[in-house]
Amino acid sequence: MKCFVDYPASCHFPIENLPYGVFSTVQDPIHRIGVAIGDLVLDLKEISHLFDGPHLKTVQHVFKETTLNSFMGLNCAAWKEARDKLQSLLSADNPTLANNAALRTKAFVPQSQATMHLPARIGDYTDFYSSIHHAMNVGIMFRSKENALMPNWKYLPVGYHGRASSVVVSGTPIKRPNGQTLPVEGQAPVYGSCKLMDFELEMAFFVGGPPTQLGEPVDIKKAQERIFGFVVMNDWSARDIQKWEYVPLGPFTAKNLGTTISPWVVTTFALEPFKVNNFQQEPKPFEYLVHDDPFNFDIKLQVDIAPKNANTSTTVCRSNYRYLYWTAKQQLAHHTVTGCNVNPGDLLASGTISGDTSDSFGSMLELSWKGSKTVDLMNGEQRKFLQDGDTVVMKGFCEGNGFTVGFGDCVGTILPANKM
Amino acid sequence: MKCFVDYPASCHFPIENLPYGVFSTVQDPIHRIGVAIGDLVLDLKEISHLFDGPHLKTVQHVFKETTLNSFMGLNCAAWKEARDKLQSLLSADNPTLANNAALRTKAFVPQSQATMHLPARIGDYTDFYSSIHHAMNVGIMFRSKENALMPNWKYLPVGYHGRASSVVVSGTPIKRPNGQTLPVEGQAPVYGSCKLMDFELEMAFFVGGPPTQLGEPVDIKKAQERIFGFVVMNDWSARDIQKWEYVPLGPFTAKNLGTTISPWVVTTFALEPFKVNNFQQEPKPFEYLVHDDPFNFDIKLQVDIAPKNANTSTTVCRSNYRYLYWTAKQQLAHHTVTGCNVNPGDLLASGTISGDTSDSFGSMLELSWKGSKTVDLMNGEQRKFLQDGDTVVMKGFCEGNGFTVGFGDCVGTILPANKM
Ligand SMILES: [Ca+2]
Ligand SMILES: [Ca+2]
Ligand SMILES: [Mg+2]
Ligand SMILES: [Mg+2]
Ligand code: NI
Repeated sequence: MKCFVDYPASCHFPIENLPYGVFSTVQDPIHRIGVAIGDLVLDLKEISHLFDGPHLKTVQHVFKETTLNSFMGLNCAAWKEARDKLQSLLSADNPTLANNAALRTKAFVPQSQATMHLPARIGDYTDFYSSIHHAMNVGIMFRSKENALMPNWKYLPVGYHGRASSVVVSGTPIKRPNGQTLPVEGQAPVYGSCKLMDFELEMAFFVGGPPTQLGEPVDIKKAQERIFGFVVMNDWSARDIQKWEYVPLGPFTAKNLGTTISPWVVTTFALEPFKVNNFQQEPKPFEYLVHDDPFNFDIKLQVDIAPKNANTSTTVCRSNYRYLYWTAKQQLAHHTVTGCNVNPGDLLASGTISGDTSDSFGSMLELSWKGSKTVDLMNGEQRKFLQDGDTVVMKGFCEGNGFTVGFGDCVGTILPANKM
Repeated sequence: MKCFVDYPASCHFPIENLPYGVFSTVQDPIHRIGVAIGDLVLDLKEISHLFDGPHLKTVQHVFKETTLNSFMGLNCAAWKEARDKLQSLLSADNPTLANNAALRTKAFVPQSQATMHLPARIGDYTDFYSSIHHAMNVGIMFRSKENALMPNWKYLPVGYHGRASSVVVSGTPIKRPNGQTLPVEGQAPVYGSCKLMDFELEMAFFVGGPPTQLGEPVDIKKAQERIFGFVVMNDWSARDIQKWEYVPLGPFTAKNLGTTISPWVVTTFALEPFKVNNFQQEPKPFEYLVHDDPFNFDIKLQVDIAPKNANTSTTVCRSNYRYLYWTAKQQLAHHTVTGCNVNPGDLLASGTISGDTSDSFGSMLELSWKGSKTVDLMNGEQRKFLQDGDTVVMKGFCEGNGFTVGFGDCVGTILPANKM
């Protein structure tokens, strides 16, 4: 596919990608929906009238809104029509946009001039725990190799409800939290700043389609129609706070200090060429979790740490979405099995994605093996957990045949804790 | 205080109460904000122009919205001004409303003709575990008397993030869920309908005030300003599903099948006369959780079960909000200690409120002591857990000097599970 916007073959936003985001500019601070193409953003508000196909012509207002929720709330056919129209409008042989200088001037903004915002109002956010290597690592560290996986782990995608309000877009600084920890088992806890600040390399998908009704599970056969697209996610975690608080009801203040997502939502369509076989599941899951078609993706993931005042950054982890044991469809089917309703804009995260080699672990907890070893940085420093001023950059990309589909960076810098 | 609307002394909605809700009628299906007075609803949309005090005169639009979020998003002073104005307008010696027949006709609707809706868009919903008798009961049942409370329990208000989308208003039927359970320890789990369906008697408060910023905890000294008002809540729980799924990340599908709240939000002002001493806390909490002023309330709570086709209902539990160990202010301060941001309309629930006598336990799990004994119903039936067709009615009320402040019923009926 040839696009009239120029970009190199290494570009993460070719015409094969077309991810959706929400942006504003200094000139126009109104939030609006854009699509990344090359190093530009195509402002959909300016071209909403061009979506004249059967599924979109009566609902063009979805392109003029300040979040993607209404567009996400349409259906698969509408999303496909939008994608086809965008590919057509951007193709080198379509004059509609290419030859309309006035419209082009209005509709394209350099990404360097765009401030990105959360792509959707996130009604609810859920975090799963679906990487078997991660669950094994944590289980071995805190229990034993023999009892590493909890008995339920291979029967259902373990997950928990997270804090939607604390999900922020890439670039938002994250403050080291103050909270309670138990430095010495059996003694009294202390209140102070987190000593074991961590990232978690995750991906997450946005739910699409009209709202479902309470009491009506999403059938696994219909699950794909409700998976709008994916982002890279950093589930910042205060390990010492988490360890003290999480019994028996799960992580709470150790996680609600902030969760960062990459700004561009890469659609399931764009990921289609990168489908790979699902992780082999043994025992076979219950029928409500079974789908035979592949819904796993070869998405390369990487975590870099750039310390403050260093002019180097170090890749500390290379992982891949394909390592997940449970698929996104299974996550959605399980989430709703007891009748939970879902809304467009809900965010469902994968859990930390670790591979099976020590350079593919998706958290400092695993990379430093619970603080028992150090991770070397290029500038000569070492880390067990994150330090103030550390910037964590997560990247996700798929390498296609002559093109790359990328997610845009998921970035956050650790600020010092509030004075107590 | 004498009101020009007539009601008996036993009425739950006297001029001393004035709870806020959102309602519609057959004639006018638009959701709008109302205040309960006697057996009427006062439609605030129709009298918004009368809120002419300094805090409200420029923001009268908050009374014309379809949810309470904007009103909740103002501040304590504005809420107080609204309450004072409403008490003045409704008082027997103020002619403004009393003598304006046309306005009265427009502005008052019988409660019997009002359909109640969720009072606010709930951005995030959190459930605490703050009743010591409940936590002790559960701990004794599943561990032992010696280890009943987890080590963290008296140091912090344990809580977890719940599913905001599944919070529904009183009257919404609740379907018995299908899901995974482990009938026999050590064997494979099964998929089927929940066998141990339960209620949890709780109260919850709505957060008010402008949104806070991520990274900025709510100081315990400012917490009260952010507590808009309270509702009665039933946190429906599938015990068998919960037991199998909850390790290690907490309750998930066992809880997101539906959570019911009473329709009227009783403000903190209306509860002021019912303040009682806080529960004695030993050890003394960390400074960020300390407040010396009482913020505990004598709110009588009651749970009735009405089986299908029975013309009797049985009160199975009489409890009281005052049994809570942790106060609402402490819950909010702890929730935000690591920097979690809160928004007006967020809902924070108390956890099951049990007293220390066996007739004050707030769940069937406790009343039947894990199914080891039966609860007698008036119609001759018995229960260990809930059956299809059972209607659970929760009531909350405060008995004042010559008046009663009530919450309106929190009701739900269990429907049979979906066919598998
Ligand atoms: Ca996580
Ligand atoms: Ca509960
Ligand atoms: Mg988080
Ligand atoms: Mg619930
Ligand atoms: Ni939410």
